[in-house]
Formats: sequence, C-alpha cells, structure tokens
Amino acid sequence: MRTIKIGMIGLGTVGGSTYSILQGERKRLESRIGAKLAVQKVADKRPEIRRTFGIPKAAFTTDAEEILKDKEIDIVVELIGGLEPARSFIMRALGAGKTVVTANKEVLARSGAELVALARKSGAGLYFEASVCGGVPLLRGIHQGLTGNNISEIYGIVNGTTNYILSKMSLEGVEFDEALRKATKMGYAEADPSYDIDGLDAAHKIAILASIAFGKWVTVDKVFKEGIRGVAQRDIGYARDLGYAMKLLAVGKRTKQGLEARVHPTLIPVNHLLASVVDIYNAVFVNTDCAGPIVFYGTGAGGPSAGSAVVADILDASRSILSNSKMGFESGLAVETAGQIVDIEDLVTKYYIRVRVIDRPGALASIAGVFGQESISLASVRQTEEKKKVVDLVFMTHEALESNVRKALRRIADLKVVKEVSSCMRVEDRI
Amino acid sequence: MRTIKIGMIGLGTVGGSTYSILQGERKRLESRIGAKLAVQKVADKRPEIRRTFGIPKAAFTTDAEEILKDKEIDIVVELIGGLEPARSFIMRALGAGKTVVTANKEVLARSGAELVALARKSGAGLYFEASVCGGVPLLRGIHQGLTGNNISEIYGIVNGTTNYILSKMSLEGVEFDEALRKATKMGYAEADPSYDIDGLDAAHKIAILASIAFGKWVTVDKVFKEGIRGVAQRDIGYARDLGYAMKLLAVGKRTKQGLEARVHPTLIPVNHLLASVVDIYNAVFVNTDCAGPIVFYGTGAGGPSAGSAVVADILDASRSILSNSKMGFESGLAVETAGQIVDIEDLVTKYYIRVRVIDRPGALASIAGVFGQESISLASVRQTEEKKKVVDLVFMTHEALESNVRKALRRIADLKVVKEVSSCMRVEDRI
Repeated sequence: MRTIKIGMIGLGTVGGSTYSILQGERKRLESRIGAKLAVQKVADKRPEIRRTFGIPKAAFTTDAEEILKDKEIDIVVELIGGLEPARSFIMRALGAGKTVVTANKEVLARSGAELVALARKSGAGLYFEASVCGGVPLLRGIHQGLTGNNISEIYGIVNGTTNYILSKMSLEGVEFDEALRKATKMGYAEADPSYDIDGLDAAHKIAILASIAFGKWVTVDKVFKEGIRGVAQRDIGYARDLGYAMKLLAVGKRTKQGLEARVHPTLIPVNHLLASVVDIYNAVFVNTDCAGPIVFYGTGAGGPSAGSAVVADILDASRSILSNSKMGFESGLAVETAGQIVDIEDLVTKYYIRVRVIDRPGALASIAGVFGQESISLASVRQTEEKKKVVDLVFMTHEALESNVRKALRRIADLKVVKEVSSCMRVEDRI
Repeated sequence: MRTIKIGMIGLGTVGGSTYSILQGERKRLESRIGAKLAVQKVADKRPEIRRTFGIPKAAFTTDAEEILKDKEIDIVVELIGGLEPARSFIMRALGAGKTVVTANKEVLARSGAELVALARKSGAGLYFEASVCGGVPLLRGIHQGLTGNNISEIYGIVNGTTNYILSKMSLEGVEFDEALRKATKMGYAEADPSYDIDGLDAAHKIAILASIAFGKWVTVDKVFKEGIRGVAQRDIGYARDLGYAMKLLAVGKRTKQGLEARVHPTLIPVNHLLASVVDIYNAVFVNTDCAGPIVFYGTGAGGPSAGSAVVADILDASRSILSNSKMGFESGLAVETAGQIVDIEDLVTKYYIRVRVIDRPGALASIAGVFGQESISLASVRQTEEKKKVVDLVFMTHEALESNVRKALRRIADLKVVKEVSSCMRVEDRI
C-alpha cells in the first residue's frame, strides 16, 4: 500500500488541529483513499511545541527548509499564515512539483494567479479550502459544484468578529465600543482588532471568492473596504425601522460596468436569509443563472473548523496524487488577473444617509435641494422626533452614482443648518 | 485536443436543461477542462423532441441501446428517472467501464451500494450530485468537503412542495387542503401529490444523504416516513405559541443505538435557521465534530437547477477521465449496506401531542395518569379556551420512548372523556 507523505509547516491553531485530526482519524481517513497517510515532518519555530503534540524527534524540525528539501514529501501543508515567508515556501514547493495545501488567505488574495500558473506549469496540485470560511465547503462548492452555472453575484458575511459585534449591537442595543469589548472578552476579537473590524479580513476573502466565481483573479489591494467603526446604534435602529438589517457584507458582482469587489456595512432586507445569520456565524450567498440562489453557512473560524478543511484538501490531494491526475483547485482556475475593478466612485446603488441638522424651518428643503442638484432622487425621508435643537434626518435614496452622493454630502456638510453628515451606507435590496 | 463523448438517455425536464447548458455554455465548459465536450448521442422515446432541441438526426435515437453499445461514448448521462429501466441502463454502462452521471434518486436510494461496488470493480466513475436538492452542491460538499469531520446528524428540508405547503399554512393561516391547491396551481405539486406530501421523495433523499454522511448505505425502504396530510392549521398555531416551527424534516442521526433515518412533520425551535427556510426552498443542516454546524441552502428542484448539477458532474467526470483517475462519488463511498436502522418504536425524543377532550372535571387527570403509567413525563400542558364542550389539550413531553407514547395514545383514545387523539408529532429541539 502506497504512503502519502506529508510535511507540515506551522503548528499554530490551524496546524495543531490539522495534526490532531490526521492522527486521531488516521484509520478512517486512510480507508477513504486506500493508501497510508504519514506526517513525515513538522516544522515550527517553537521547539517546545513538539512535546505538546507528542511528535517524535525525528519528525520535527524548527527549520522549514528541511521540509522543502525533502524529496520524499508529496504534500506540503503551509499553515504559518501571513505573506512572507509563507508565499516563498509555497512557491518553492509548487516549483518542485509538490502539491500544496494551505489556509493562507493573504498569499492567495495577493498572488493567486501566480500560484495557479506555477502549479499548472509544474504539474503540482494547489488546495486552499480553509482560506475562506474555515470548514465550510464553500470554495469547493463554487469551484466544482457550481460550474454548470454563470455566477452573477456573491454576498458574504465572511468575518465572524464583525458579525458578532453587529449582532450584539442589534440584539442588545449597545454601542460599537461595548460590543467590541464583549467580542474581545469572548476571544472573538484580537488585541488589535483592526484586521477584522476595518474590513481587511473580509477583503481578502471576497478577493478569493470573486476570483473563483468570476474566473479572473481579483487581488485584495483592488477591493474597496470600509469597516464597522462608524456604525452607530441609532443607524441600526433606523435601518430596522425601515425594514433593513445591518451587516458587514463582502460583495462581488459581475455587472455591465465590470467586476465589483467591495466590503462595507450594508443594509439588507430584514427578511433575507443573510439577515438571520447572527453571532460569529458566516454565510455566503451566491446567485447563479441556473441553480438560483445558493447559500453556504457555518462557523468560519477556529482551529478545528479550518483544520477539518485542510484535512479534506489533503484527502483530495492524496487521491489526485495516487491517480497521477491534476484535480486540485488549480485545475479550471484562471491564471489571468482581472484588469479593472469598478471604482467605488462609479458604483450605482441605493444609500442610507443620516444627517444631524439644527431643527429649523427650511433645513430639509436646503438638503433636499442639494440632492436634487446632484441627480440623487430620494425614496424616503424621516425626521426623528427629539425634543432637542439638533435632530437626525434619515434619507433613503433611489439608485444613485456614488461620486454624486459623495459630492452631495460634501456640499450638505457645508450647509449652515447641518451639524454633521453622520452616516452614509450602501443598501443592497435586490439581493 | 481530446474530445469527451457524452451519451444522454432521457431529454425530459432535467435532460433538456442539461442539453441546453452543454450547448449554450460549451466554450466556457471546454476551457475549464482543456478538452472538447461532444454530445455524441441523445436517446428519448419521443422522436418529436429532437426538433425541439435542434438535435441533428445522426445524434438522436429513440433506443437507449444505441448509447449503451456505443464504444466511443465516455460518459452515459441517465436522466429518465424511476427505477427501471434506469437501473439496468446504469448497471450496464458501469459494467462496460463507462462513467455514469445520473440524477436518479430512486436508483441510488435502492441500489447505491451495488452501483458503487460495480463502479469500483470496473474502474468507472459514478456521479449523482443532482439526485438530492438539484443544483445545491450538497453531496459533493459532504462527500469531499467534510471528510475531515465525523458527521453526527443531518436535518434536511429536502422537499420543496411540502415546504411550500407548510409555509403557506404557517404564513397565511390556511388549512392543508387549500395550501395544497395553491401548490398545485403554482405548479409546485404534481397532479398526484402523494410522492411529495407523503414523504416518499424526502425518504429517498435522506437515504442518499445518510449513506454519504455515515459511510454505510441506507436503503429507502428502511427509512420511516410520515407525510404532512395530518398537519392541521391549529397544530401549526399551537406549535408557534410554544416557540416552534413545523417542518417536514428528513432526519439522519448516528446515535448509540445505531443509525436513524426518518421523515416526518417535526417541531423545531422557531429561531433556528431552518425555521426561516420557507417557500419552495430546501436546506440541509449537517452537524460535524470539527466544523460545527454547516448548512447548504437553495432551490432543490427545477430543470435548470438539476441540469446545472448534472453539468458540474460531467465536468468533474471529464477531468477524471482525462487524467485516467478515479475521483468520482464512488471513490471513498462505502459498498456496505447499513445492517439495522433504529426502529421508529425505539426512538427517544420529545413529542407534541394534541387530544380533543370533552371539557369535564377530571379529563386532564385521567390523561395525565395514562402518560405517567407509560413512563412519559410531561413538560407542559395547555388547554385552549373555547366556549365549546370539546376542547384541545396540547401536551409537550420530555424525552420519551416512541413505543411508550404509542401505547399511551392508544389507551388515551379509549378514555370516555376523549373525543380524538388528533396529533402526535416529534420535536427536535437540540438541533
């Protein structure tokens, strides 16, 4: 019976879970592929980690080079994360014809096209299910399962931390700062939460999702991103009154103008399935021409979840290696990079806008006048009933061009009756 | 460039859509596999169908034999449905080493183990994504995407017709008969709706899902099934008052007692994600040890949806054939049949029970007495406030053995104060 030899680089949260599943489920996994699975070597910079996992001395190293140079290793599993040295490790492994399994969204979202091209050239496999939404079989689902379809849109709640925070704000009526504190306390937010709450994590994920769905690689630096720091409790309340839920949405669309890839707080209809995805859960809504809407849902984070996806990739990679075939994610994926992404200024959508105004006759008229001059037509206006001199005016627009909206809001901010343009959020109501 | 030659048997709803996608999307599909795709021959009993699809004379036959005997054909796509002659066609194709793509849930739910064994023996591929929930990439997701996990439970809303009817009953307050009429009018229910509303369709689907998830083939005749004819409007109302939604659930579980596979109207917590799956939509909830709960959602029916799944299978099959590998659904699937399924009488769950009683002192005491004698402990009792002599008593039990419940209900039906035991439905509240 042939043995598939695995080299693992990185034994952190995901690596540790992957190693544990491979050891604990070995028999079941081996029976599925009809071959033996052996972790030939594990590399981690922390020598003390070896004992934690009970790894034999000979199978452990602090030097990833040992794995990259090992000619017997069939599959290199890269789980150190971050751009470098991970990318170099992956490139070298692929270049040497070794199959690579990785959970690394940074590398994929920046260098996906390059990796696929290299894998194709060297005949190596490339697998990265765990890079988006952990254990949810989402990339496989799109890449293999939806190939009979043309995909027009993707809407994803792909970051658990921000979904937790927005859920807390919505369900418990707390402000952002308090919800963030709760998330930190629960271990759902990092000490520096910026990567999650400013939309960077989600931007990486939509870059990868859009690349797979639309057949051209979208790099993360082209994704527009706006986080949730600016979401106020009252915005969530007003949105609810208008029939909307607030979510940090990662959006990918194929439109007449080109590809859209963007991450921002978004108002979606409150009765939409995505609106009921709360807490740390993730869900990705994919709109297809033949199969209609498809949703994948699950926990997007955590070692065991991502580890299980890495293991699924290892099994598929093993089957492919055993039959000498090229059936990885690299097969059927584009090597081209999308030229242009629709500039956010060229976006056409509906907007939710909140303006703080001095409650004085003519305030609404002067603001509405500016919207009209900038070709923005209003769907509704509400004024809060506060016994204060300064009140909220909440506008919902019809479809408008973002550059017009930005221009209008700059002008509105300069009006004497206006204290502040407090919020401007995009609305997706044909989701 | 190599050409993958396809023979199609059956050009009905799914077949027609499959053919149309293959023709309309040919360029995109071919670019994904780096080979040509040719529909070598189509067989359908209705000769007039040829012109509908503009199929050249030489590529059409009314005799499936021509496809089975054609040595050039790589992939036989069986889309006639029903048990025979479909099963024989599939067996002959597999026996001849041809890869088979099918949407046939009847054949899979009865002879899955046999087909997998035959495919393995002859080295042919077997693909059947479209057999459950149409275009939702569900089977692939479980079979390939969740292999890093042990799956403990599956709960599926897998029949669109019954979900539509129950949604209408719940949202519009109509009775079953009227909801069924609406479903028929909308084209969601067949002239003879029995296959859907009596749970047969769902039973086939859970048989296939359980087989893939639990690693042993469950045949449909072992699946317990109870349809939705007995669901009354008032049951839905009472359930809602108690915090539950009513769904026709297809349940597969791996418990200490063995495998459970059953279909029946089920009360689930109203805030569960599955409760918000309404209309003709399908959703399958899979509980895993590493990745937690995973949900797949989409339209489970319709030609284009199922056709897109067939096309995805054809592409995977083509890639596998081109690389001479065996990477179909047959790979990693069991050839054994599950010996025993837990008998429904041995089920332990909670129950919702409605009894029509004559409103007389002692009625509740006598019924409660019987429950107690049969070791059924009650979680709650409600009596409806009606100004009639006959009222509803609604019981929610704690976990109880089904055989005890049945025995108790037989005894309760015989009590003088009892007009009728109107409903007894299973509750899944730890879903």
